[in-house]
Amino acid sequence: MQKICIIGAGLAGSLAGLLLSKLGFEVHIYEKRPDPRTDESEGLNSEFGASTSATKRSINLALSYRGIKGLTAAGLLDQAMETAIAMPKRVIHFVNSNTVFQAYGKADESLWSVGRQNLNEILLDEMKRGSHAVSLHFGHTLQSLDKAGNCVFIDSKSNITNKSFDLVIGADGAYSAVRDNIMKQSRMSFSRQYIPHGYKELTIPAITVQRDNKTVLDYALENHEGLHIWPRGEFMLIALPNPEKSFTATLFAPYHGSDGFDSIDPNNADDVTAYFQKYFPDVVPLMPSLIEDYRSNPVGSLVTIQANPWNYGRTVLIGDAAHAVVPFYGQGMNAAFEDGWILYDIVRKAMSDSNTTAANVDLVKCGAVFAEQRRPAADGLSALCLEHYHDMASNTASLLYLLQKKVESAILTVFPHAFKPLYSMVAFSDIPYHQAVEIVEQRDRLIRTSLVVGFTTVGAIGLAFGLKTWRK
Amino acid sequence: MQKICIIGAGLAGSLAGLLLSKLGFEVHIYEKRPDPRTDESEGLNSEFGASTSATKRSINLALSYRGIKGLTAAGLLDQAMETAIAMPKRVIHFVNSNTVFQAYGKADESLWSVGRQNLNEILLDEMKRGSHAVSLHFGHTLQSLDKAGNCVFIDSKSNITNKSFDLVIGADGAYSAVRDNIMKQSRMSFSRQYIPHGYKELTIPAITVQRDNKTVLDYALENHEGLHIWPRGEFMLIALPNPEKSFTATLFAPYHGSDGFDSIDPNNADDVTAYFQKYFPDVVPLMPSLIEDYRSNPVGSLVTIQANPWNYGRTVLIGDAAHAVVPFYGQGMNAAFEDGWILYDIVRKAMSDSNTTAANVDLVKCGAVFAEQRRPAADGLSALCLEHYHDMASNTASLLYLLQKKVESAILTVFPHAFKPLYSMVAFSDIPYHQAVEIVEQRDRLIRTSLVVGFTTVGAIGLAFGLKTWRK
Repeated sequence: MQKICIIGAGLAGSLAGLLLSKLGFEVHIYEKRPDPRTDESEGLNSEFGASTSATKRSINLALSYRGIKGLTAAGLLDQAMETAIAMPKRVIHFVNSNTVFQAYGKADESLWSVGRQNLNEILLDEMKRGSHAVSLHFGHTLQSLDKAGNCVFIDSKSNITNKSFDLVIGADGAYSAVRDNIMKQSRMSFSRQYIPHGYKELTIPAITVQRDNKTVLDYALENHEGLHIWPRGEFMLIALPNPEKSFTATLFAPYHGSDGFDSIDPNNADDVTAYFQKYFPDVVPLMPSLIEDYRSNPVGSLVTIQANPWNYGRTVLIGDAAHAVVPFYGQGMNAAFEDGWILYDIVRKAMSDSNTTAANVDLVKCGAVFAEQRRPAADGLSALCLEHYHDMASNTASLLYLLQKKVESAILTVFPHAFKPLYSMVAFSDIPYHQAVEIVEQRDRLIRTSLVVGFTTVGAIGLAFGLKTWRK
Repeated sequence: MQKICIIGAGLAGSLAGLLLSKLGFEVHIYEKRPDPRTDESEGLNSEFGASTSATKRSINLALSYRGIKGLTAAGLLDQAMETAIAMPKRVIHFVNSNTVFQAYGKADESLWSVGRQNLNEILLDEMKRGSHAVSLHFGHTLQSLDKAGNCVFIDSKSNITNKSFDLVIGADGAYSAVRDNIMKQSRMSFSRQYIPHGYKELTIPAITVQRDNKTVLDYALENHEGLHIWPRGEFMLIALPNPEKSFTATLFAPYHGSDGFDSIDPNNADDVTAYFQKYFPDVVPLMPSLIEDYRSNPVGSLVTIQANPWNYGRTVLIGDAAHAVVPFYGQGMNAAFEDGWILYDIVRKAMSDSNTTAANVDLVKCGAVFAEQRRPAADGLSALCLEHYHDMASNTASLLYLLQKKVESAILTVFPHAFKPLYSMVAFSDIPYHQAVEIVEQRDRLIRTSLVVGFTTVGAIGLAFGLKTWRK
């Protein structure tokens, strides 16, 4: 039986491990952190990579079609959906406290707010079940690896372990140790680009209300079934609902400049209150711990990671290790789950096409095919995510954008297939990201050409009519 | 007196150290390798960075205007020129052994072939001279540094040293440890992009000839005062003259593909001979150690490095650490020397503008100004170097290119200033690289517009004449 090693027991690594174990491989997952289900001091929500201590993982995430597809293949969708909250629409909050809604797609299409830790625990719990167990090794830090699949780990008691695998999958995030090791040994091209914005997480706790003569918890914001956005141009606040009826709010703002994080002294309550009163007056009464949250929660950085190639001998990168993106499209986790699904699908097809089993299918080749096939989609996604900030922070509040959304929606009703909007292709389909971009670009060219032809025709008719009139 | 630390005693660090010491700073240079002037086992020509063991430094380099300017400021030009060999032209070798010449610039403009090790030793020797000595610390590897200018070194005897500086300059090359340390602590964006090509160095030794009844050494190639190129499209051979009358030849070829390094077994003499006989028949008789050189010399990789910002607290990057480029424009060393000169110039002006001395000028601000001002030029150079491969490997052999060169040369004679070619602005001026590109782009737009206006005028006259004729 061939052995697969996965470095990183986060979302990407756990799902890939479960799917590959279904094909009969012996899967070992190594994670440098302790088990988040038993450890009190340090959950998976804590530090994000050893390198940049100020960066934390987000608490909740927007699950959409590609992620759902991966969870379905692992048989875990129902469990994940138990605590998921539908977000079929954006709820846009203006400074004057007015709100408008924007549906994300058709009536049956929705994003789903899910908790990162809960989802991670569902994936980890599943590894004990069934005939194809996945072995979990927490507290194991990768020291080194080579292209032949040999790994050296150091555990929390400083014991050194040497292990050999047929395939090593780096699923250890944006600050991947697997990738760092490969970069020291190979001509892997690599790019990390920070954007000027950072983010800080805040809380809108549940409120108590009287209902049927009972005191119950409820959401502090109306329309909790939505992704709330306070778009303010260069900065914005968003909020996603949690099952315990709170919202996790995230402030995105530039580090520097007049309304950037640098302009607010986190230890000065007046500074913090003045900023929120000026730009987000409606949420201030809903955030009783704003001053404390603002002071104690760090500013996280936002980075795009690209690498090429993703494979090196018996190693291959997936998820954020291969292609971390900025969070504005809500696709980081979805793309990572899709990676796991695609790799699983490539291996499955290789087994059936070549009539091989988990004992002898060519895993190195499968890793290379995955790396080659998937990278253009990830590059497409990177660009989409960077562009989408403007859509969220500025366009959502503009009249033109709202009008365009209405036109799009009307067209979609008449031509449900021909004019699927870009957002729908990204969030509610599994069209490879770069192909979605190409489809839209072709469509835009067609529309522009049609407009030119149309205007020219109208102009020619007008001119002919004018000449006729003039000659009379 | 403020203390400046430079990590790396290569060309970039040594020149910057000498120039800054002239302004009165206490300069310390730390170098992980032993002193190349006394160490037999490992000169500066040996390993290039700890990370990629197959990568070697090139033996000789093409010095041009920007490098000359830096050496002049350090008072070392005459010494450097003693062994330099003028290369005022390209000597293009066709497969049929015919050659043509292409002047690089005007009659008094030339590249100069200089030996890396000799030049490095001239710079190191200078540090003992004069009143402002530079302290050299060989065998000291940087362990860590912080934004406050604190550095930890480990020496060859495993002694740990802690030192604090007012400014720390990372001049430690493409695989910079300074940069790696900064990247772990900050939001520095970073990119390293390998091209598909690698390179291998070979030798064309001196030959013995009879002259005036004496046996003397001579160059094996005619026209030794030139940069020899055997352009073959996807690959090429070049050769630069050395003072001992040998040439260092470099084969540039893709790693993979039909004529790539992978296609030649270095241990198979027939493979190597067949390849050179097919593409470079005229050099085979001039390379008696070809088989041995090809087997024992590694294939080096070619990488472009970009970082942003270049500064972090009291640290700043220069040379390859900030902006390694591929070697096709022969500008790596020249740009590194120009970095040193620009940083020196910024500090010198800050001292005179604010009437401060080396004791109290704001070095952190000077580093920040350098990082901000110089980066666009380096980005411009990166792109130029990547594009220039095609100029060298393909265009130099095409008739159209040769014709264009002749036209350029004729125009240059008539308008020596208005139409300075891009190559001349890069190699024979200190116009910032990105501005040189902008000048050429503007000129090209002007020429295209002129052509359109010209053709339209000719067309309109033709049409008018035609109509007149037709009406008759």
